[in-house]
Amino acid sequence: MTNPASGIPVIPLPAIATPIVAAPMAGGPSTPGLVAAVGDAGGFGFLPAGYRSVEQVADDVDDLLGRSAAPFGVNVFAPLPERPEEAARVPEYAERVARRAALVDAPLGVPEHTDDDFAAKVQLLSRLRPAVVSFTFGIPHTEVMDRLHAAGIGIWLTVTSPEDALAATGAGADALVVQGWEAGAHRGGLSDEEPAQLGLLPLLALVRRVTPLPLVAAGGIADGAGVAAVLAAGASLASLGTAFLRTPEAGTAPVHAAALTEPRPTTVTRAFTGRRARALVNAATVALGDDAPAAYPEVHLLTAPLRAAARAAGDAENLHLWAGQAHTLAETVPAGELVRRLAADARTALAAATAALGGRPGGAG
Amino acid sequence: MTNPASGIPVIPLPAIATPIVAAPMAGGPSTPGLVAAVGDAGGFGFLPAGYRSVEQVADDVDDLLGRSAAPFGVNVFAPLPERPEEAARVPEYAERVARRAALVDAPLGVPEHTDDDFAAKVQLLSRLRPAVVSFTFGIPHTEVMDRLHAAGIGIWLTVTSPEDALAATGAGADALVVQGWEAGAHRGGLSDEEPAQLGLLPLLALVRRVTPLPLVAAGGIADGAGVAAVLAAGASLASLGTAFLRTPEAGTAPVHAAALTEPRPTTVTRAFTGRRARALVNAATVALGDDAPAAYPEVHLLTAPLRAAARAAGDAENLHLWAGQAHTLAETVPAGELVRRLAADARTALAAATAALGGRPGGAG
Repeated sequence: MTNPASGIPVIPLPAIATPIVAAPMAGGPSTPGLVAAVGDAGGFGFLPAGYRSVEQVADDVDDLLGRSAAPFGVNVFAPLPERPEEAARVPEYAERVARRAALVDAPLGVPEHTDDDFAAKVQLLSRLRPAVVSFTFGIPHTEVMDRLHAAGIGIWLTVTSPEDALAATGAGADALVVQGWEAGAHRGGLSDEEPAQLGLLPLLALVRRVTPLPLVAAGGIADGAGVAAVLAAGASLASLGTAFLRTPEAGTAPVHAAALTEPRPTTVTRAFTGRRARALVNAATVALGDDAPAAYPEVHLLTAPLRAAARAAGDAENLHLWAGQAHTLAETVPAGELVRRLAADARTALAAATAALGGRPGGAG
Repeated sequence: MTNPASGIPVIPLPAIATPIVAAPMAGGPSTPGLVAAVGDAGGFGFLPAGYRSVEQVADDVDDLLGRSAAPFGVNVFAPLPERPEEAARVPEYAERVARRAALVDAPLGVPEHTDDDFAAKVQLLSRLRPAVVSFTFGIPHTEVMDRLHAAGIGIWLTVTSPEDALAATGAGADALVVQGWEAGAHRGGLSDEEPAQLGLLPLLALVRRVTPLPLVAAGGIADGAGVAAVLAAGASLASLGTAFLRTPEAGTAPVHAAALTEPRPTTVTRAFTGRRARALVNAATVALGDDAPAAYPEVHLLTAPLRAAARAAGDAENLHLWAGQAHTLAETVPAGELVRRLAADARTALAAATAALGGRPGGAG
């Protein structure tokens, strides 16, 4: 397949046995051990480069290569442009954060605008050559795309709307990560203003109409039936994040792993980082409200000490409890076993659906 | 199967050839001709009893029986309790509606609390014995459930959360209509306060864990791949509404049918009826805002003349343009052909997904 916009041959999806992806979960959960376990079970895992220094990313890749020969990906946060009018609102928001930080004796962080060492990370990755580099929050400049492509790396771009999908295809992506409204953690598309709030199934249908690229479905997939569903809906791969948060290989904070089992609703909020993300409702999401400045990573840096203190104290009410909508279904099974079980259950689900559609009178009952 | 709560045998799903439901669309779209065409093609259609007098419902059933011998259902809005504190906010809201009504020379309607002749409709239906009576907005009293069951009618209750599903199962439902956040028109569950905004796939997974009843999946299903997806996700039937709005048999207002093709986002709003519903964004949803009183049907009656005038004038900015999230995919094909095409495309989608999950190395690429 060639990319219809660039005319350049698309770098095919990695040749894996099982069409299941462990989504990149920055901030602790996606360890090299998790990625290795998923890859060794025939799935495909991602290391997160977000919130990690270039040296840490290099160390993570080294660690992973020492554990597994399976192909893997690395996810990078594309730098967001500075928004001065939003940044100007940060001091007022900081007062609200300060009241919560006082509850756990934490200082405020320094709300700077940084690019998380983007160029150096791209340079590192073009040298390390993971099978895939995925981007969230935006489309990198052409030179970045070209450099990674020249290294033989497949580029996956995250989209949350058909408009995103058109833009990502036009930029020369090799595959699209299609993130439904159900997904946990950051909204990864080109904008976090999403009036349409597109659920995964309609989003897949709408995106399929505007691009021939392979689609990686993400958002609220919790079990084998969900994997089967998105494959039937036209995705090439099913990406699960929250489902892996309670596996022993994940570096999820214990307070986070425990909270996932509670039937709390989730909410999409800018309160923690300045970029909308889906989290379990807790005292912080309620107290910090819906109107945090759209200033990433300023707000992320501002609230980081509060969240670190809450995490250390096991205080579920004052940190970001990222979670997809089906979070209560996350299981405490080894990640490799989870991959195998998801695939087996997906096969069973597809066989049952095929039988139901047999077309015999009464076959639907 | 027996209902786990009541111990009463569940009335099985109707014996239809194709597991596709045309959802009830009150206010015009779901005509007897649409229901007949869907039933004759092997699917299952619903007549809406909402907004219709008892006599009109009886006439609709007569009309349908003259057209088709296929089994069908009737949907009834369960009466909502009066909420005096919300009703007290209606006069202030009426001033806002009046400003829009003046734009189209329409009067304000009279905001009464009615039960839409619920008891008489139940009496009629227990005599007419459609295969299924479905309810939205709530769970009828035990006597109503018993009366319909005694007539051999299957009762489907609409749910938008696992908590709803537990309650509906406990009330003796025979099947659950599982309505995802993607769905067009009214939110049909026990409450329209839905902090969790559960998308269809996670909702199906969560509901499946709390009930053994057959599930009818609804919300954002737009094509055969979507039908395949929800069947793979464990639904027994796939219910589509918006997908039928542009079929020639539907009684959709021309201004509504035309607007569906535009890439407008949808929004969930109480502005038109006092009960949250998903509609295309238009001038009315913007001007009337997010904070209409939660007073149904008072707000419905209040805004009815405005909407009727806009409909007659072909003015897309001043009426309720109910639409699911994949509305741009609605096609202008005869309803029977749509049912057959959806089923054929769903079979193709399941076969492709089954091949992708074959488990051979490289099979996922």
